[in-house]
Amino acid sequence: MTATLNKPPLSSKLAFSNYAATQRLKALAANPPDLTKPGVLTPERLTKYSTENAGYTILFGTERINDEILTALKELAAESKALEKMKKMQAGEVMNFINGYPSENRTVLHTAMRDFFDNPQTGKAAAEATALERKELDKIKAFMEKNDQTNQFTDMVTIAIGGSDLGPKSVHGALNFYQKPNRRVHFISNVDPDATARVLRDLDLKKTLVSVVSKSGTTMETVANEAFMRAQFTKAGLDPNKHFISITGEGSPLDDPKKYIQSFFSWDFVGGRFSTSAVYGGVLLSFAYGFQTFWEFLKGAHAMDQVALEPNIEKNLPLLLALIGIWNRNFLHHHDLVIVPYSQQLEFFQSHIQQVDMESNGKRIDKNGVAVDFETGPLLWGQTGTVAQHSFYQLLHQGTTIAPLELIGFKKSQYGLDNEENGTSNQEKLLSNLLAQAIALAEGKSSDNPNKVFPGNRPSHIIFGEQLTPYNMGALFAMIEHRVAFQGFIWDINSFDQEGVQLGKVLAVTILSQFEANRKKNSAGKPFPLGETLIKKLKLL
Amino acid sequence: MTATLNKPPLSSKLAFSNYAATQRLKALAANPPDLTKPGVLTPERLTKYSTENAGYTILFGTERINDEILTALKELAAESKALEKMKKMQAGEVMNFINGYPSENRTVLHTAMRDFFDNPQTGKAAAEATALERKELDKIKAFMEKNDQTNQFTDMVTIAIGGSDLGPKSVHGALNFYQKPNRRVHFISNVDPDATARVLRDLDLKKTLVSVVSKSGTTMETVANEAFMRAQFTKAGLDPNKHFISITGEGSPLDDPKKYIQSFFSWDFVGGRFSTSAVYGGVLLSFAYGFQTFWEFLKGAHAMDQVALEPNIEKNLPLLLALIGIWNRNFLHHHDLVIVPYSQQLEFFQSHIQQVDMESNGKRIDKNGVAVDFETGPLLWGQTGTVAQHSFYQLLHQGTTIAPLELIGFKKSQYGLDNEENGTSNQEKLLSNLLAQAIALAEGKSSDNPNKVFPGNRPSHIIFGEQLTPYNMGALFAMIEHRVAFQGFIWDINSFDQEGVQLGKVLAVTILSQFEANRKKNSAGKPFPLGETLIKKLKLL
Repeated sequence: MTATLNKPPLSSKLAFSNYAATQRLKALAANPPDLTKPGVLTPERLTKYSTENAGYTILFGTERINDEILTALKELAAESKALEKMKKMQAGEVMNFINGYPSENRTVLHTAMRDFFDNPQTGKAAAEATALERKELDKIKAFMEKNDQTNQFTDMVTIAIGGSDLGPKSVHGALNFYQKPNRRVHFISNVDPDATARVLRDLDLKKTLVSVVSKSGTTMETVANEAFMRAQFTKAGLDPNKHFISITGEGSPLDDPKKYIQSFFSWDFVGGRFSTSAVYGGVLLSFAYGFQTFWEFLKGAHAMDQVALEPNIEKNLPLLLALIGIWNRNFLHHHDLVIVPYSQQLEFFQSHIQQVDMESNGKRIDKNGVAVDFETGPLLWGQTGTVAQHSFYQLLHQGTTIAPLELIGFKKSQYGLDNEENGTSNQEKLLSNLLAQAIALAEGKSSDNPNKVFPGNRPSHIIFGEQLTPYNMGALFAMIEHRVAFQGFIWDINSFDQEGVQLGKVLAVTILSQFEANRKKNSAGKPFPLGETLIKKLKLL
Repeated sequence: MTATLNKPPLSSKLAFSNYAATQRLKALAANPPDLTKPGVLTPERLTKYSTENAGYTILFGTERINDEILTALKELAAESKALEKMKKMQAGEVMNFINGYPSENRTVLHTAMRDFFDNPQTGKAAAEATALERKELDKIKAFMEKNDQTNQFTDMVTIAIGGSDLGPKSVHGALNFYQKPNRRVHFISNVDPDATARVLRDLDLKKTLVSVVSKSGTTMETVANEAFMRAQFTKAGLDPNKHFISITGEGSPLDDPKKYIQSFFSWDFVGGRFSTSAVYGGVLLSFAYGFQTFWEFLKGAHAMDQVALEPNIEKNLPLLLALIGIWNRNFLHHHDLVIVPYSQQLEFFQSHIQQVDMESNGKRIDKNGVAVDFETGPLLWGQTGTVAQHSFYQLLHQGTTIAPLELIGFKKSQYGLDNEENGTSNQEKLLSNLLAQAIALAEGKSSDNPNKVFPGNRPSHIIFGEQLTPYNMGALFAMIEHRVAFQGFIWDINSFDQEGVQLGKVLAVTILSQFEANRKKNSAGKPFPLGETLIKKLKLL
C-alpha cells in the first residue's frame, strides 16, 4: 500500500463512511428539526431530551435532533463498536496504533491512574499501571506532607508545555476556593523569555520549588526554560539542585537524583493531554490544595470512567456528547465547537479541552492509514459566560456561520459568597443568562427590522452540575476525555498520537541552527533558504 | 421593504456580491497558488510578498495569493471605496447606521481619542471629540498624580464587561514590564459571584480603588457586581463612596458625585470594543503604568490611524490584512481565523481581538438591511505560540478543516532577560518556531507513511515588530481595529452596532423574574414556559 498526498488510495473502504447509520444520518440531515417553528421548542421537548448520571445533567433539547436522529446515532455507536473500544481501552489493550505502518503501538491507560475505587479493572496491563501509579502517589503524599510540616516551599513553578501544562493549570484555576493559604503556583510553558522573566518578577527563589515536566526529558521549550530558571537560582546564590523536582519517564535525562530532590514517574501509556490525573496533576494539586483534594478529583474522574462503560447510551454521558458532536460535525457540517462554561472558575478549561480535543482528533487518516473522506475533530475554542455574551455572541446569534455551543453550569457557586440586587442574586443572574442563551440561539426571533432578526436553529446543549467541587471537576474532566475518545473510536482514527506536530519542530531546529551558526561566526548551520530569507528579511541577525 | 427571515428580498442587490472584483476573485479562487509545489515557496516569494510601515513588517508570502489575486483585491478595495469610508470615519461622519431602518445613527470616533499628535483631523465632529477627550485625560492625569503622591490606593478593581474589560485587560497583560511597583489591577467582569469572591480573597479593601465601567450605567453584570462589591466595603466598615470611581456617560446613574470620588466620561461615538484608547483604558493604564505609558500607547495607535489613510494599499497594513482576510473568508471559504502571538505578554490579546472582530463583523445584513448572500466576520480564536504548537497545531497541520493563521512576533523580548542553552537564546528559539510554522503550514511534506503526510497549503501571515513597547502595542491595537473596520466597509455591513446581543438579554430578564417571583413567593414573574421548565428540570428552585 502506498500513501499519496491528500487522496485516499482507490482501494480504501473507510469504515465511518460506509456504516448503514451514516447513510441514514445523511438522509436525516437533509431535513433536521426546525427549532424556530412554533410548537417545536416546547417545555415537553426540553424535559424529554435531558438525561442525568454521576451528578451531571445534560440538556440537549436545544440541539437539532429528534427521536429518529437519536436512534440512528445510537446505531452508529453500535456499528462502530464505540463501547467495546472504550472497554478495551480501559482494560489495557493496545489502542494507539495505525495498522500496517510504524506507529506508537501503545496501550492508553490514563483511566488506570484513577482506578483506586469501585469496580477496578482486572486486565493485567490496567492493573499493573494502577499499581505503578499507587507507588508514585505515595511518593507525592510523603513529599507534600513533609513540605506542609516544614513549610520550606511556599511557591511552586511548573515548567511544562502542552497537555501537562494546560490540564493541571485548568484544574488549578477551577478549584482555587480549596487552595491552601501560603501556597502559590506559577506556570511557565512558553519558550518566550518574557514568560520566565515575568514569573521571576514576583518570586522569592528561596521559598520556591520548581517542578520540571517532560516525559522524554528533551522537550525543547522545557529544556530551555529549565536551564534559564536554574541560572537564576545560581545567580541568586542558591543551589538549584535543592529546589528542583521532576516529573518524567524513568531513565530520562530528568531522572537524576543529583539534579532533582525527587523524580515522579509517568509512562508512555499516559499521554500528556490525559496526564492531569497522573503525577502531572498530582504533584501540582497536592502542593496547592493538599493530597486529599487531588484524591477527590481522582474519585470523580473514576466515577465518570464507569459512566463511560454504561451500555445504555442515554445514561452514558460522554458517548451521548460524542454522538451529538458527530451529528453537528459530519451531518450538519458545522466546523467549530464553542465551549462556554458559565463559571469564572473554569476560565482556563476551554484551553485544556481545546488541547485534548484538537490534538487527539485533528487527524486526516484512519487507523488503516487511509485518508478520510469525512470531517474529523472540530475547531474548538471558548470563553466563560457571561463574558462571552459581551464578546462573540453577536456573531453566534447573527453571524453567517453557525457554531454549535457546549454550555456548562453549576447550581451553586463555589465560594458561596453572594449578594442580592434588584431582587435576585448574582448566581441567579448567571444561571438565567445560561438558560436564556440556549433558548435564544435555538428559537431565534423574527422582526420587521432586519437588524433585529435572529435566525435561530443554532444548536447548543447544557452540561449542568450541582457545584464545582474537586469530585465534580474530576468527573467533568473525564467526561470530556471520553467524549473525545468516543469520537475517535466512531471515526476509527487514532486519537492518541500527534504526528502533526513533528514537521514544525524539525524546521524550527533547522532555522535555529542558523542563529547558532551566526553566533559562532561559522557556517555550521544546515542551509535552509526559506528560513534564512525570513531571518534576513526581519533583520534578526 | 419588508424583512423576511433568512432570505434576502428578491429586490436585493448586495454591493459586495456584485463588484467586478468579486467576480474576478471568484474565478481566481478556482485555482489558487499551490504552495506545496516545488519552486513556488521560494526565498524570492517571501521577500516579494512582504511590506513594512510604522515599525511593523507583514510577511504574507505564505498566504495563497499571487500578483493577479493581489491586483483583484486592490480593485475590490477601490470598488468598495474602503479608503474613502475610513477617511469619513476618522473625520467624524455618521458611519454607524442601517439605511431605511431605525438604527444607532452615530459617528464612530475612537480615532479622535488619540488624535493629539501629527496631522490632526480638521472635521468639526472629530475635532470636538478630541477636545472633549483632552479634558478627560487631564482629569485622569491629575487624579493619578495625586494618588502617586499619597499612595492611597495600591490596588484597582475594574468592574466592566465586554470590550471595555477585554481591551484594557489585554494591554495590561502585554505591558507588565512597565508596571509600577506597588500597583496591582484586578478584573471582575463575569456576573458569576465566584468572580468577585476570588478577587476579594487577596484584597486589602482599605487600599483598594474600584473603577466601575458602564457607559449607560445599566449593564446587568456591572450593576450587580458593583452592588456586590459595595456591600463588601460596608461589611468591612469602609465607606464605598470614598473608594469608587466611575467611567460612564455624562448624566448616567454612574455620574453621581455622592457615590463616586470622580467620574470619567465617554460618549456614544466610542463603542466599548474600541474604548481602550479612551478613558476606559486611560484610567486603568495610568493607574498601573503611569500616564506617560498610556500616552505612548496613544501615540502608537495614532501612527497606525495615519497608516490606515495611506492610499498605497501595500503600505496600508490594516487594509492589506483586511483584504487577505476577505480572500481567505469569501473566496477560499475558510470560516476561522486563528491568532497566535509568539509573545506570552499577548496572552489576553486574542480575547480582545476576538471581541472586536466577532462583535463588529458577525452580521447578517448589509447597510441597506438586506440579508447578505456571502460570509461576513470569521470565527476568531487563538493562543500564544509556542503554547499553541503543543495544543491545537496538530489539527492545523493534519486536521480535515483548514484554518488560516495570523502569527505575531517581535524581534526583541520585553524584559531583555534571557539565557543561552545549546548555543541559542530562548528568544531565538521562540522566533525559529514562529518562522518554521509559517513555512511548515504552507509547504507541507509528503511521506510514504500516511501519518507523516502534511498536506500543506494552510495559509498564514506574520505581523512582525521590533519590540512590544507601549507605542508598538498601540500601533498593533489600531492595526487590528482598522482591519476589522475595513472588512466591514468592504462587505458594506455596519460594524459598529451589536443588535445580536439583545435577544439573550431580554430572555435572561424574563427567566430572572421567575427567580425573583419565587423569592417573593408570589407570581409577579412573567410566565415563560421554556425558562420555567429548565429551572424545574435543573432543580434550581
